[in-house]
Amino acid sequence: MAVTTKTVEESCIAARRAARELAAAPTATKDAALEAVARLLRERAGEILDANAADLADERAAGLTQALRDRLTLTEERVAAMAEGVRTVAALEDPVGDELERKRLISGLDLRKVRVPLGVVAVVYEARPNVTIDCAALTIKSGNAIVLRGSSYAERSNGALAAVVREGLVEAGLPEDAVLLVAGGGREELAELATQDGLVDLLIPRGGEGLKNALKDVATVPVIYAAAGNCHVYVHSEANLEMARRIAYNAKVQRPGVCNAAETLLVDAAVAADFLPDALRDLHGAGVALVGDERTRELAGDVEVGVASDEDWSTEYLDLKMVVGIVDSLEEAVEHINDHGTSHSEAIVTSSPEASERFSSLVDAAVVYTNASTRFTDGFEFGMGAEIGNSTQKLHARGPIGLRELTTYKYVVRGDGQVRE
Amino acid sequence: MAVTTKTVEESCIAARRAARELAAAPTATKDAALEAVARLLRERAGEILDANAADLADERAAGLTQALRDRLTLTEERVAAMAEGVRTVAALEDPVGDELERKRLISGLDLRKVRVPLGVVAVVYEARPNVTIDCAALTIKSGNAIVLRGSSYAERSNGALAAVVREGLVEAGLPEDAVLLVAGGGREELAELATQDGLVDLLIPRGGEGLKNALKDVATVPVIYAAAGNCHVYVHSEANLEMARRIAYNAKVQRPGVCNAAETLLVDAAVAADFLPDALRDLHGAGVALVGDERTRELAGDVEVGVASDEDWSTEYLDLKMVVGIVDSLEEAVEHINDHGTSHSEAIVTSSPEASERFSSLVDAAVVYTNASTRFTDGFEFGMGAEIGNSTQKLHARGPIGLRELTTYKYVVRGDGQVRE
Repeated sequence: MAVTTKTVEESCIAARRAARELAAAPTATKDAALEAVARLLRERAGEILDANAADLADERAAGLTQALRDRLTLTEERVAAMAEGVRTVAALEDPVGDELERKRLISGLDLRKVRVPLGVVAVVYEARPNVTIDCAALTIKSGNAIVLRGSSYAERSNGALAAVVREGLVEAGLPEDAVLLVAGGGREELAELATQDGLVDLLIPRGGEGLKNALKDVATVPVIYAAAGNCHVYVHSEANLEMARRIAYNAKVQRPGVCNAAETLLVDAAVAADFLPDALRDLHGAGVALVGDERTRELAGDVEVGVASDEDWSTEYLDLKMVVGIVDSLEEAVEHINDHGTSHSEAIVTSSPEASERFSSLVDAAVVYTNASTRFTDGFEFGMGAEIGNSTQKLHARGPIGLRELTTYKYVVRGDGQVRE
Repeated sequence: MAVTTKTVEESCIAARRAARELAAAPTATKDAALEAVARLLRERAGEILDANAADLADERAAGLTQALRDRLTLTEERVAAMAEGVRTVAALEDPVGDELERKRLISGLDLRKVRVPLGVVAVVYEARPNVTIDCAALTIKSGNAIVLRGSSYAERSNGALAAVVREGLVEAGLPEDAVLLVAGGGREELAELATQDGLVDLLIPRGGEGLKNALKDVATVPVIYAAAGNCHVYVHSEANLEMARRIAYNAKVQRPGVCNAAETLLVDAAVAADFLPDALRDLHGAGVALVGDERTRELAGDVEVGVASDEDWSTEYLDLKMVVGIVDSLEEAVEHINDHGTSHSEAIVTSSPEASERFSSLVDAAVVYTNASTRFTDGFEFGMGAEIGNSTQKLHARGPIGLRELTTYKYVVRGDGQVRE
């Protein structure tokens, strides 16, 4: 089954048509499609790996860094993991049709507020073929159609994967155009996709700042930007310092290149002298380049801590680098975070329930942690199966975007002839 | 208490600061502020009416149409109605702090998803002073700060009303800058307000297409556009035709200048000959200018029905004008509505539960009615007390924007030292 070679607009028109069928599809039909996709992924693993090998052998791929090549590479295990992921999504509750509210209005009308799919979702992403499957599974389950615009580096891999998904849809009696891949292409095609008003209901860019800025200038369809994560760990005066060390270390070191990794460590002055020397030594030992304010540098002992510039407090390093500062109160920590953070994931380490409550209430972020690493902000960890993106905006969705976040609602109102007086 | 004369940016900074206090304010405090505002509106009615008289006497107001002058005019009853409206909002449930979900994650973390205020909401509106009070009441109750940008025609009226609200806030111990009025001014000030990224969380334009287009070109803050309402009434083959006549008449005639009024009447071919002559005579008798497709014109008898152009099917007349068409099935009606409608409010008149179900499921709109007029789409009728706008977009909010729609959510996660493996 060949993957489409339609233009961007033709693809969006086809997706819109398919979306109307998907919106009305029963849960069992959508689940059957997902089961078929999971089965076909295993059956076609050979073809998929061949396509992936061709992508990796392409001369364009030669210039990729090792990390990017790793993201592009598929293996038998990775294909099996994708199939497992599809089954996980199939097992989640179908949000479509949920009754969110029901009431009898003063006019006697019966009002029901019910969840409905958004319609057509477009995702623009980098050379990570598994995203093709994750996103398609989420949109199928939530009754949406999806237009996928992957990277040209992954063209053959994505083509093979999308073909499998389309075959699974057809097996279940659903329209194959509910999952459409548009050719990578350049900025022009991106702009074309981002201006399909009336056809695309939501565009989710998964990529770096360059992609986001390119979209901000041209997009006329609704976009959810997964903005940067300048996340903080705040060690409160009543923190368990051993726990604080582990959390600060994990939040920075476990996977520094992702948006929920911490970039700033704030330490209450009351515990700084006890906490900092060991904590800084841990971080330094893991290869973290440290900068800090004056008080931090005084307590650093033999650990090298550079001078933090104004810019450091607002930078998402996405790397083994961290800025460390001392604050005199929880209020100062909150103010610092609200002024410099990106409203992604913020953590306090404290044994005081009052401090936890106050921090959780005052910090303006999608996720506020007490006594845990910021690294947990993720659709899988949150029990949402997977995520199609991660929102740092306040409208519609905050944090991981899963099945529910791919829906909107509709008021269904029934009367017996009511007119407005 | 003088109303602020700050610049747009200074106002937004002050509102942001106030928003942090409002977000943490208990329900009782917010309600006390609203009670104080309701009381002060009555006590200060004289001053408010004097200010309004000055607005009406201004030479600029001389050029207004009678309808616009009427919207600008305040009377003792109208001020009393505003006070009553504020009490109605005070009596509504406070959405802030609602626990939307709670679960234990696989990592053992305790996750709660709770409603929180958006922060700073900006509203741009025309010369209707009551909007000042409606919007301020909704934002206070939902824990937000508001920046109001009214019309220069209503400058003195809005000033007097905003002063009363600010005094009410202070009486209850809340910051007066939770409600700020910025001077009317021109497009430049509008653009300044629409680009206060990081200060304004949501901008709601209440006005015509001119205002919306002006914003679309410049806005960088999140905007909810209350788009046009090209609403339809579809008379199904199994409709009670007497009911259908009343609903079609009401949806068009009762208040034609509003977004939930109907613009198109679709009639099933099976009942067209029975239904149309009387229905068209009703509408014509109420002064409705009619245009229609060929089959409608053939059935119009002595009622004058012009030729509908392609454009008519997509026009929001906002006037005593209606386009009438005949369709051969429910599916054709649905397709017509999904192709030409604006996803606002759509109605079917039918005695068939299956037809109602099918129409409600397939029509892609914020509100879908069975056997009722489209005119009910409104915050008050929906039991939301009031509305700050009416959304035809799919993200975040659909239909009337009330207290809940002025909130977002936050994940509050508590652990006992969890780090990501």
